[in-house]
Amino acid sequence: MSEIYTEYYHKKTGLVVGVEEVLFSKQSPYQKVEILKTDTWGNMMTIDDMVMLSEKDEFVYHEMLAHVVMFSHPNPEKVLIIGGGDGGTAREVLRHRSVKQVDLVEIDETVVRASKEFLPQIGNWEDVRLHVLFEDGIEFVKNASNEYDVIIIDGSDPVGPAEGLFEKSFFEYCYSALKKDGVLTAQTESPWIESYHPSMKKVFKALDILFKHSSMFLGFIPLYPAGMWSFAFASKTSMYNAPEVTQRIEAGLNEFGSDLRYYNKGVHLSSFALPNFVAEIIR
Amino acid sequence: MSEIYTEYYHKKTGLVVGVEEVLFSKQSPYQKVEILKTDTWGNMMTIDDMVMLSEKDEFVYHEMLAHVVMFSHPNPEKVLIIGGGDGGTAREVLRHRSVKQVDLVEIDETVVRASKEFLPQIGNWEDVRLHVLFEDGIEFVKNASNEYDVIIIDGSDPVGPAEGLFEKSFFEYCYSALKKDGVLTAQTESPWIESYHPSMKKVFKALDILFKHSSMFLGFIPLYPAGMWSFAFASKTSMYNAPEVTQRIEAGLNEFGSDLRYYNKGVHLSSFALPNFVAEIIR
Repeated sequence: MSEIYTEYYHKKTGLVVGVEEVLFSKQSPYQKVEILKTDTWGNMMTIDDMVMLSEKDEFVYHEMLAHVVMFSHPNPEKVLIIGGGDGGTAREVLRHRSVKQVDLVEIDETVVRASKEFLPQIGNWEDVRLHVLFEDGIEFVKNASNEYDVIIIDGSDPVGPAEGLFEKSFFEYCYSALKKDGVLTAQTESPWIESYHPSMKKVFKALDILFKHSSMFLGFIPLYPAGMWSFAFASKTSMYNAPEVTQRIEAGLNEFGSDLRYYNKGVHLSSFALPNFVAEIIR
Repeated sequence: MSEIYTEYYHKKTGLVVGVEEVLFSKQSPYQKVEILKTDTWGNMMTIDDMVMLSEKDEFVYHEMLAHVVMFSHPNPEKVLIIGGGDGGTAREVLRHRSVKQVDLVEIDETVVRASKEFLPQIGNWEDVRLHVLFEDGIEFVKNASNEYDVIIIDGSDPVGPAEGLFEKSFFEYCYSALKKDGVLTAQTESPWIESYHPSMKKVFKALDILFKHSSMFLGFIPLYPAGMWSFAFASKTSMYNAPEVTQRIEAGLNEFGSDLRYYNKGVHLSSFALPNFVAEIIR
């Protein structure tokens, strides 16, 4: 079999990926989950016909989503991941030796099952510090209080089951679930896609009201619409200053070895520099 | 008429753009030049079926290609652009008040003619400081000596007429054509596309041997393969230090007003931070 996966992100504009085989396809109670064997990116997961990740590009998204927020905290021990059922964000979080517990709350067991079978090198499922819970992330975080050092929101686009992850009330629950020096990060869509601007504005407005410090950072994700992806960072205290973060990154990366393929000290600090048209979206 | 423009950058993987109308299509002596009216990006130019630019995204490429190198020189008066027949790079260069002369050497008159007619707001063709020459850029630069403050290489991909713009001998001519404190920039393809790595390596190796300082910087270009684009920067003297460049940027942008949509001081300095896998390509 050989066909072409097409994802339009605006009218008839989008991306195409050559597909050698459909390895998995299932309509779960929440969404359609597929794993496609591609001609360029290795195995690739789509949810409701939107690319989530591929074996060859996932390192960018997961390294940026995990390490920017993790190194912004002086000693992250307990981490909550909402979504992230492919396991990639947890894998990166678990590199940090300070971590004692990671709660990964994924609404859709199908995502985890498909990932374990067809994207087996992405997750680090055997680590005993990782607790996987199949629950509604919003309900879960609502019931947590003063518990986490870091919260990472690794959901899909603001349509379907992930819609609530862009609401102010959700970030209020996150704020309460964090300890007093807690930090949070979230994926916040492509600045090039105007239809997502209202969701982006909503998230950054909520974070600005709730948290002492919040800002946007960027990463290059080749399989996401227009290739530019935004993330939110928020802290209950002031933003940690660059020299402190720099020192922690240096020590931490020394511990990890040289496995990372995207993230480094320069990339971390530079990712907060926003092009003018991006800064204007959330101004 | 309504169809879909497809550009594969690896096997059957690539981008698609909805096309409302083919406004211009001509096989020149050098290449096929087309202007398509698209559903998302305004009018878009392709050369040999590869996207060169669109009305809606061209600001990224042109601002990065022009201002990073221009602000790295203390007083750029005479500038050479090789290629750049759409006029966008020259438009950005001409914003700098220090500039007395811009020589734009485009091999293919068809590119300029099509741009003036169908992308009229991209160029600033009326500026008397701009000299447009329809010549082979390699031959032109070969005959220049100790003449330019800045050289900008704004060619297409290393196939077809632009192939020679990635050769060491070409950069030797550029070196000689620059004054003793001259600076140079060039577009150097997408780090995600492995088939272009040999050309990228060749360029950076040549610059490293010839120039006192050289480095790579990056920009997000939604219509180029994988969305991440690389550029080379090279200087005949040491790299100008950040505080000096910063001061010049602040003064310069103050002069321009607030027209720029991508480039700013933070973006300039941050664009040199390379993800690990990118740095490895040219190591």
